[in-house]
Amino acid sequence: MMTDKFVFKFAPDDSEGNASMKELLGGKGANLAEMCGLGIPVPSGFTISTQVCTHYYKNDDTYPAGLEANVEEAIAFVEKKMGADFGSNENPLLLSVRSGARVSMPGMMDTVLNLGLNDEAVEGLAKQTGDKRFAYDAYRRFVQMYGDVVMMVRAETETDHDPFEIELDKMKKARGIETDVELGWEDLKELVATFKKIVSDKAGREFPNNPKEQLWGAIGAVFGSWMNERAVVYRKMNGFSDDWGTAVNVQAMVYGNMGTDCATGVGFTRDAATGENRPNGEFLINAQGEDVVAGIRTGLQLTLNDSLKWAKDSDISEEVRKDKFPSLEEYMPEAFAQLMAIYKNLENHYRDMQDVEFTIQRHKLYMLQTRSGKRTGFAAARIAVDMVDEKIITPQEALLRVEPDHLEHLLKPIFNVDSKKKALNDGRLLTRGLPAGPGAATGRIAFSAGKAATMSVDGMGDVLLVRHETSPEDIKGMKVSKGILTARGGMTSHAAVVARQMGKVCIVGCSTVEIDYKASEMVINGKTFKEGDWLSLDGFAGQVIAGKVETMPSDVQRGLDEGLDPNANDDIYYHYSKLMEWSDEFKRLDVRTNADEPGMALQARKFGAVGIGLCRTEHMFFGGVRIKAIREMILADNVEEREKALAKLLPMQREDFYGIFKAMDGYPVTVRTLDPPLHEFLPHEEEQVAEMAEEMGVPVSKVLHKVRQLSESNPMLGHRGCRLGNVYPEITVMQARAIMEAAVKATKEGFKVFPEIMVPLVGHVNELKRQREIIVNTVEEVLKESGTQLKYMVGTMIELPRAALTADQIATEAEFFSFGTNDLTQTTYGLSRDDAGSFLPFYEENNIFPNDPFQSLDRDGVGQLVKIAAEKARSVKEGMKLGICGEHGGDPSSIEFCHMVGLNYVSCSPPRVPVARLAAAQAALREQKQ
Amino acid sequence: MMTDKFVFKFAPDDSEGNASMKELLGGKGANLAEMCGLGIPVPSGFTISTQVCTHYYKNDDTYPAGLEANVEEAIAFVEKKMGADFGSNENPLLLSVRSGARVSMPGMMDTVLNLGLNDEAVEGLAKQTGDKRFAYDAYRRFVQMYGDVVMMVRAETETDHDPFEIELDKMKKARGIETDVELGWEDLKELVATFKKIVSDKAGREFPNNPKEQLWGAIGAVFGSWMNERAVVYRKMNGFSDDWGTAVNVQAMVYGNMGTDCATGVGFTRDAATGENRPNGEFLINAQGEDVVAGIRTGLQLTLNDSLKWAKDSDISEEVRKDKFPSLEEYMPEAFAQLMAIYKNLENHYRDMQDVEFTIQRHKLYMLQTRSGKRTGFAAARIAVDMVDEKIITPQEALLRVEPDHLEHLLKPIFNVDSKKKALNDGRLLTRGLPAGPGAATGRIAFSAGKAATMSVDGMGDVLLVRHETSPEDIKGMKVSKGILTARGGMTSHAAVVARQMGKVCIVGCSTVEIDYKASEMVINGKTFKEGDWLSLDGFAGQVIAGKVETMPSDVQRGLDEGLDPNANDDIYYHYSKLMEWSDEFKRLDVRTNADEPGMALQARKFGAVGIGLCRTEHMFFGGVRIKAIREMILADNVEEREKALAKLLPMQREDFYGIFKAMDGYPVTVRTLDPPLHEFLPHEEEQVAEMAEEMGVPVSKVLHKVRQLSESNPMLGHRGCRLGNVYPEITVMQARAIMEAAVKATKEGFKVFPEIMVPLVGHVNELKRQREIIVNTVEEVLKESGTQLKYMVGTMIELPRAALTADQIATEAEFFSFGTNDLTQTTYGLSRDDAGSFLPFYEENNIFPNDPFQSLDRDGVGQLVKIAAEKARSVKEGMKLGICGEHGGDPSSIEFCHMVGLNYVSCSPPRVPVARLAAAQAALREQKQ
Repeated sequence: MMTDKFVFKFAPDDSEGNASMKELLGGKGANLAEMCGLGIPVPSGFTISTQVCTHYYKNDDTYPAGLEANVEEAIAFVEKKMGADFGSNENPLLLSVRSGARVSMPGMMDTVLNLGLNDEAVEGLAKQTGDKRFAYDAYRRFVQMYGDVVMMVRAETETDHDPFEIELDKMKKARGIETDVELGWEDLKELVATFKKIVSDKAGREFPNNPKEQLWGAIGAVFGSWMNERAVVYRKMNGFSDDWGTAVNVQAMVYGNMGTDCATGVGFTRDAATGENRPNGEFLINAQGEDVVAGIRTGLQLTLNDSLKWAKDSDISEEVRKDKFPSLEEYMPEAFAQLMAIYKNLENHYRDMQDVEFTIQRHKLYMLQTRSGKRTGFAAARIAVDMVDEKIITPQEALLRVEPDHLEHLLKPIFNVDSKKKALNDGRLLTRGLPAGPGAATGRIAFSAGKAATMSVDGMGDVLLVRHETSPEDIKGMKVSKGILTARGGMTSHAAVVARQMGKVCIVGCSTVEIDYKASEMVINGKTFKEGDWLSLDGFAGQVIAGKVETMPSDVQRGLDEGLDPNANDDIYYHYSKLMEWSDEFKRLDVRTNADEPGMALQARKFGAVGIGLCRTEHMFFGGVRIKAIREMILADNVEEREKALAKLLPMQREDFYGIFKAMDGYPVTVRTLDPPLHEFLPHEEEQVAEMAEEMGVPVSKVLHKVRQLSESNPMLGHRGCRLGNVYPEITVMQARAIMEAAVKATKEGFKVFPEIMVPLVGHVNELKRQREIIVNTVEEVLKESGTQLKYMVGTMIELPRAALTADQIATEAEFFSFGTNDLTQTTYGLSRDDAGSFLPFYEENNIFPNDPFQSLDRDGVGQLVKIAAEKARSVKEGMKLGICGEHGGDPSSIEFCHMVGLNYVSCSPPRVPVARLAAAQAALREQKQ
Repeated sequence: MMTDKFVFKFAPDDSEGNASMKELLGGKGANLAEMCGLGIPVPSGFTISTQVCTHYYKNDDTYPAGLEANVEEAIAFVEKKMGADFGSNENPLLLSVRSGARVSMPGMMDTVLNLGLNDEAVEGLAKQTGDKRFAYDAYRRFVQMYGDVVMMVRAETETDHDPFEIELDKMKKARGIETDVELGWEDLKELVATFKKIVSDKAGREFPNNPKEQLWGAIGAVFGSWMNERAVVYRKMNGFSDDWGTAVNVQAMVYGNMGTDCATGVGFTRDAATGENRPNGEFLINAQGEDVVAGIRTGLQLTLNDSLKWAKDSDISEEVRKDKFPSLEEYMPEAFAQLMAIYKNLENHYRDMQDVEFTIQRHKLYMLQTRSGKRTGFAAARIAVDMVDEKIITPQEALLRVEPDHLEHLLKPIFNVDSKKKALNDGRLLTRGLPAGPGAATGRIAFSAGKAATMSVDGMGDVLLVRHETSPEDIKGMKVSKGILTARGGMTSHAAVVARQMGKVCIVGCSTVEIDYKASEMVINGKTFKEGDWLSLDGFAGQVIAGKVETMPSDVQRGLDEGLDPNANDDIYYHYSKLMEWSDEFKRLDVRTNADEPGMALQARKFGAVGIGLCRTEHMFFGGVRIKAIREMILADNVEEREKALAKLLPMQREDFYGIFKAMDGYPVTVRTLDPPLHEFLPHEEEQVAEMAEEMGVPVSKVLHKVRQLSESNPMLGHRGCRLGNVYPEITVMQARAIMEAAVKATKEGFKVFPEIMVPLVGHVNELKRQREIIVNTVEEVLKESGTQLKYMVGTMIELPRAALTADQIATEAEFFSFGTNDLTQTTYGLSRDDAGSFLPFYEENNIFPNDPFQSLDRDGVGQLVKIAAEKARSVKEGMKLGICGEHGGDPSSIEFCHMVGLNYVSCSPPRVPVARLAAAQAALREQKQ
C-alpha cells in the first residue's frame, strides 16, 4: 500500500520508525529507528522508504511528487539534532548514504560516505577537528567513492586498474613512500584536484560541489544499484523479489578516527562461540569501522577480563598490555559503562544476543548498527536456555532460536583444541573437502574395506577408510572405521549418506586426494601417505590433517554415556538436556531411529529415539560367513538348495534381531525385509569372481554366469524389494521366522518387544498381499510353536509413486506405512542418486532445482505424493500409523512437512535424533503461531 | 435380490427365461431359454438359478425351502413336453445335468449325462431304441460318470489309474480286443455290475438306483464343483467373484448316436475365417457330440458346396464322396433346410454371426447351444461391414464388433498360402517364439546390424536380422531388415518395441535359437544355419520356418499403395475402408504417428495419421558419418570443440527434418530434442573402443576414460533428456536450428509446415524454462535470418511423476504436453523395462499385476498421474493441447482411457494408426452408450 509518507526521520528518543517496519524501511533503517526509540545514542538521520524505490522503477526512474520537500525537512531535522549545517562551510554536516533492503544483501549495493564536502567545507572540517590531514583524507575518499559509485568513473574492464588508484600509486612513487598514511594533507589536497580532473574527463561533467546535488546523486545511485547485475542475480539465486526495493539511509557521519579520544568497534552481547553470558568485542583507537573488520591492526578487547586472557595467551607482559593493548574498560571507562548498559538494554529489548557496531567520537558513544548475532551451535543452545533461566524468553521461543542441525555438533567427538592448533601451526593441514559427516577422527589409513577390518582388530589404533568412493561392499569397512575420506562424490553420495547414518566422521569429494590402490598409497598435494600412516579428519570444517590429532568425546556425549545428572552443572550438557526436555513437551511427531545393530540402537536411545523406524536387514549379510551363505542362496538352482542356504542364515539373523529387540526394550522395531537386488551380494571384478568361485567350490563359469544373469541395466528399478520376496518366497519366510523367533526369545526373557515387519518397494497392492500372507503364516507358525502371544504388525514402505497414488488400495493390506523418501524422490524425479553427480551440481548452481531434493524433501512433487498417500490411507483406515524413514527424516524442513501432513513419526540416523526432536517441536510451535 | 422363484422351465415356445437373464440363469441356461422363446427346437428342461447356489453356500450346503417342489413341478413339465417319464421303466426320461455360470468357465465344473438309468430303465431304453448295446453303453457311461463326479470314486493320486478304466482294460484284455466299440452289450452289462461294486466298496454306500436320488446327487455335485480348487483358482485369475454362483441346467437327453437316422454337428452361420456370408459346419452320422470335437472320425460338410470343395481339395472322386462323405444337404435335406432356417433366425435375432451345436435324433433336429462365434480379424471386419450393408446392424454397432488389434493383421504382408503349406508339409517348421510383430517375412540371415546393412544393398534379396537381443546400436540394421528374430526378450523388449514401431515382422524370446556370433552361425533344434541362409518368419503365429516362403502385400496394403477405389469391389479393402470411414465419423481423438523418417511418415499418412506425435532425433545419429560426429562431440573437452562437432551434424539433421516436413505436408510434426544418455553413442566392448579410437584418431585411453566417465548405475534415471540440453545448451541450439532451417526451406517451397519442438524428461518447470529460452532464441534467430514467418510451438513430454504432479507449473512454460507413458510407467512403478524380464512374467502368471503395464496403461497409477496432469495443465491453460506418444498410444484400452481424460490425440507407430482410429471411435461410442 503506497502512503504519502516517503521519509522517516530518526534521532534518539525522536524516531518515526521501528523494528517492525523492515519491509518499508529495510533492515538497517528499521533497527536504527528502533534503537532511537530506546533512547540509545545513534547519529541522527532519515530513511527514504522502499516505496520510493518501487515508484522509481515503475515510473521511468523518477521520484514521487513531494519527496524533495520531505528530504529537505528531514535534513533540517538532522541539522538540528546534530548541531551542524548541511552545506555550511564552517560547521558542515556530513552524511553517509547507504542502501538497506528488507533482507541483508551484503556488498551488493552502493554506499557513499563523507557526503557534503567541497573545497570550502573541507577547511571547515579541518578547523573543527583541528586535523587537516583527517579532513583532506575524508575529502579524497569522498571524491573517489562518489566518482566511482555515482559518476561511474571506474576501471573499464576487469583487467584494467582503477583510475584513482593509479594516481594514488603514482603519487606514492613520486614521494618515495609506501603507505597511504605517509601522505601529508597537501598531498591529499593535490590528489583531490587530480581525482576531480579524472572525473570531469571521464564522466564529461564536473564533479558536483553543491552538497544537495551530491546528495541527490547519491540517492539516485543507491536506488540504481538495486537493479545492478550482481544484485539481480543475487536475488534470483535467493528467491528474493525485485519488487521489494531498497530503502536509502541518510545519516550524519561520526568519526572514530579524529584522534586518540576516538575509537570504533564491534561486539557481541554474549559469547558467540560458547554462548556464555559474557559481553565482549574488539575495538581500535583512532580508527575507522573498516579497520576493525579488515584486521590490519591488532584489535583491543572491550573488557579487562578478555584483555588479560588475551595477553596471557599471547605471552604479553602486563605492563606492555596495559600500555599498548588496554581494554576499553580501562581506556574509556565511561564510554565502556555506557556501552555495557546499551548491551543490556538491547538484549532485553530484542530478547536475543546482539551483534553491534559502535563509534566513539571524542568520548561520545554512537551506536551504528544492531542485529541478532550469528552464533555456533554450542552458543545457540546455551544462549537460548540461559535466556529462559533469566526469564527473558519462554521455552517455546528458546526452541525456535536454535537451528536443529546445530545440535548434531554438540554430540560429535571433538579435537583437543591445543592438539589441533599445534597441527595447524606445524603446517599439517593437507586439504579440504565437503564436510559430509561432522566430528573429529584420527586414525590409520586403510585403502580397502578388508584392510580396514583387519587393521581394526590389530590393537594398534583406530582406522580411517580412504577410497575413491564407497559402495555397499565397503560397508563392513566403514563400520569398523572412525572416519571416511573419499576423493569423489557429493553430500549425498553413498559414502556421505551411509556415514551420516552410521554417525561416522566423513569428508567426501576431496579431489586433491590421488589414491593408487595397487601401490597402497595416496598423494595429497605432493605428500605421499602409505597404508597405516596416521591421518586426522575434521568433519566440521572438512579439513584433512596429516598425522595424529587428539580427540575426545563431546561433553554432551559424555553426559549421556555416563548417565550424569544434567542439572548438576550449568554446562552444555545441561543446555542440551533442557532443549530436549522442552522439545518433547511441544512436539507432536515421535522420533525414531534407523539402526540395524544393537550398538546403534542403544546410542539412539540415549539420544531419545522411541523406536526403530528402519532396521535394514541387508547390512547384516555382509559378514564373512554370512556373505558366503547368501551367495550360496544366489547360486542355488532350485528352491531346496535356496532353503538350505537360507537355513544357515536363519540363526544369524535371529541373533541380530534378538540383540536389537533387547536394546529397544519397550519400544517398537520396524524391520524391513530384504531390499537390494541380489547382484549386490556378488563380486563384479574378475579376480574377486575367481576368489569367490574357489571359496564356494564351484566353477568360475558358474559364478560368471550368475553375475551376468543378474546384471541389470537399471538396478534401482530392477529385481529388488518385495519383487525378490515374491519370486523367492523362501527368503521372506526365513526373515519373518528369524524376526519372530528373536521376538519370542526376548519376550520370554522379560523384554517388551513390538516387532513391525515392513515390506519394501510395493507398487501394487497384490505385491503386499502376497508378502503379507507369507509373513502372517510364518509368524503364526512361530507363535504356535512357541506357545507365545505377541503383538506384531505388518506394513509397507511407500517409496514408489504408484504406491502413493494407490495408497487407499494398499492400506487395506497394511497396518502401517513408512515413507521411503529416498527412493520416492529418485522415482518421482526420475533421478538416480548415484548418477546425479553429472548434472545436479550444475542444476543447483544455476538454480534450476531450488535445492538438492535428496537433502530436503521436495514439497511440490514428492511431498504432494506423501500428502496424497496419507490422505488416501486414512480415508480407508482412520488414524493409520504413518512414518518416514528416508534420509529426509533427519532434515528439519522435511520434518516440518511431515508434521504438517500429519505423520506419526520420523525416523533418522542416531545422531540426527536430537535434531529431529527439536525440528519436530519447532514445526509444532510454528503451526501454533499461525 | 433373492426371489422365491428358483427354477426356470424352458421348452420351445414355452420358456420362463431369456437371454438377458445371464446373471440368474448362467450363459448356457439363458441362451437355451432364448432359443425356446424363438420357437427353436431345444430339448426341454429347466434351470436351477444361481441364487440357489449362493443360498447353498451361505447356509451350510442346504437348499432354500420350496426348491424341491419347484424341481418336482419342472420335471413334470419336461415329462409332458418330451412324452416320457422320469423314473419309468418302459419309457424313461433321461436327463443331463450341467453347470452354467454367467461367464464361461470351460471344463472347470462338473456334468452328469444319461441320468435316470437303472437296471430296469436300461431295458426300457433298449426296447425303445431297439439297440441293446446303445442302452448298456449309456448305462455304463452313466455309472462311471456319476461314480466319479457325485460319489467321488476316482484315482486317489495323480499317478494312480482311474479304477473304472482299470476294469475296462482288464475286460478288453480278457476278451482279446483293442477298442471299446468291440465290447458287446453283455460285456457292458457285466461292467456296470463291476463298476457298481467298485462304487459301493470305495464310497462305502450303494450306487443309487432311484432316479430322483440320482438327480439330487448330481445337482449337489454341480453346486459343489463351484468351489472346487481349480474353479476357485480360475475365478481368482480372471477376477470373477465367488459370489456369482453357478446355475444347474437339467435337460432331457437327446441322442445323435441311436442309428444312421441320427447325427450331431457344430456350425457357424458365416465363415469364421474369411467372414463370407456362407453358412457352414461339420457333422457326423450316428455319433455323439464329443466325437465331432475330438476329430477321430472325418467330419462331413453341412453344405453340398463345401462338400464338393473338400472332396476336390482331398482328391476324392465324386462317387466316393457322395457315398462315404455326403453333405447334410444331401443326406438329410429336411433337417438341413430346418437348420439353415434356424441359422437365419438366430443371426437375425442375435444380430451377429453364431456358433451352434445341434443333434439330430431319428430325423428330429434339436439345437443344444448357440453363442456369438469367435472369428479372425479378416472375418470380423467383413461380417461387421456386411451386416451394416444388410441393414442388420448400424455402423456404430459394426465398429464395436471389431477388435481394434485385428486391423493390424489386415495390413501385414502375408505368406502365399500354397507356399507356406508346402513348407510345413516338408517339415521346415523349426520352432516358435513370441509373435511380437505380425506379418510374414522371408530373407537371408544376418547376425549383426552391420552385416544386415551390407547385405541389404547387395541385390541378392531381403535380409532378416537374427540376434540374442537388440540394442539401440542395432537400429540401422533393423531398419534395413524385413524381419527380426531374437533369442531373448519378451513382448516389450527393445526388439519388440522398435520392430512394432517400424512395422517390422518380429519374433522374440525364441529360446531354442542358439547363435554363435564368432562362427556366424546358429543352431535351431539341431539344424545349423549360416549367415546368408534363407529363413522365413510368420509374425502372426510366431513360426520360424527354414528356407524361403513366398510373401505378398496384404490386399489392404495394396489398395492403399495403389490408391484403389475402395468401393470398386466387395473385398477386404472395401471393408477396411468402411470401418476407417465410420471410425473417423465417430471418434473425438486425433491419431498421429511416431515416425522419424519420411518413408515411415508417408506410410502412416496412408493409414490415416494426421500428424507426427513423436519424431525421435536420436535414431538419426546412428549412421556412419553421423555417429562419428556425435562421438566427436562427446569426446570434446570444451564448448568450442563441441560446437564444431555439432556443426557437422547440423546439415544432416536439417535434411532429415526437411524430408519429414515434406512428407507431412499440411500436418503438425512434433520433434523431440535429444533424449538418450550420451554413453549410448559410445561402444562398450574393448574391441569396439579400439576401433573407435583408431577411427577418431585419438588414444584408446581417451575413449576409455570417456566411456568410464559417462557410465551410469541407472542410465534410465541419469544424465539424459533435457538434462543434456541444459548442461550442453549447444546441442539444443543445433537441433532447434536444424528443425527451423528445414521448416523454412520447406515453407519456401510451398509446403505447409507446423513444427512442434518437444523437450524430453522435464521434472521441474525451471528445466523447461531454460530449454524454452534457448529454443525460442534460436528459432527467432533463424526466422529473422530467413525473413520468414512461421507458426511453431514449444512443449514438453510429461514422462516423470513430478512433471505430472506439477503440471500446472510446467504448463506456464509449455504450449503443449505429450505424455511419454513408457518412461512414466517405468518411474511410477519403479520398474525398468529392460530388467523386468526377471520377475514380470512371474507377476503376470500369478496375477500380481493384472496386466503388463507397458502394454496397457495402468489406469489406477500411471493413469491417475495423466489425469492429474491434464486437469492441472488446463486449470492454468484452458484447452491446452495434450497428447500421448508412448507405446500405449496404439493400445485400445489405453486409447479409451486417453479419450476419457480428454486428451486431444494419441500417437502410435504407423501400423497401429488404423487400430488407434477404430479404438478411438469405440471409446467415443462406449461413452455415448453410458
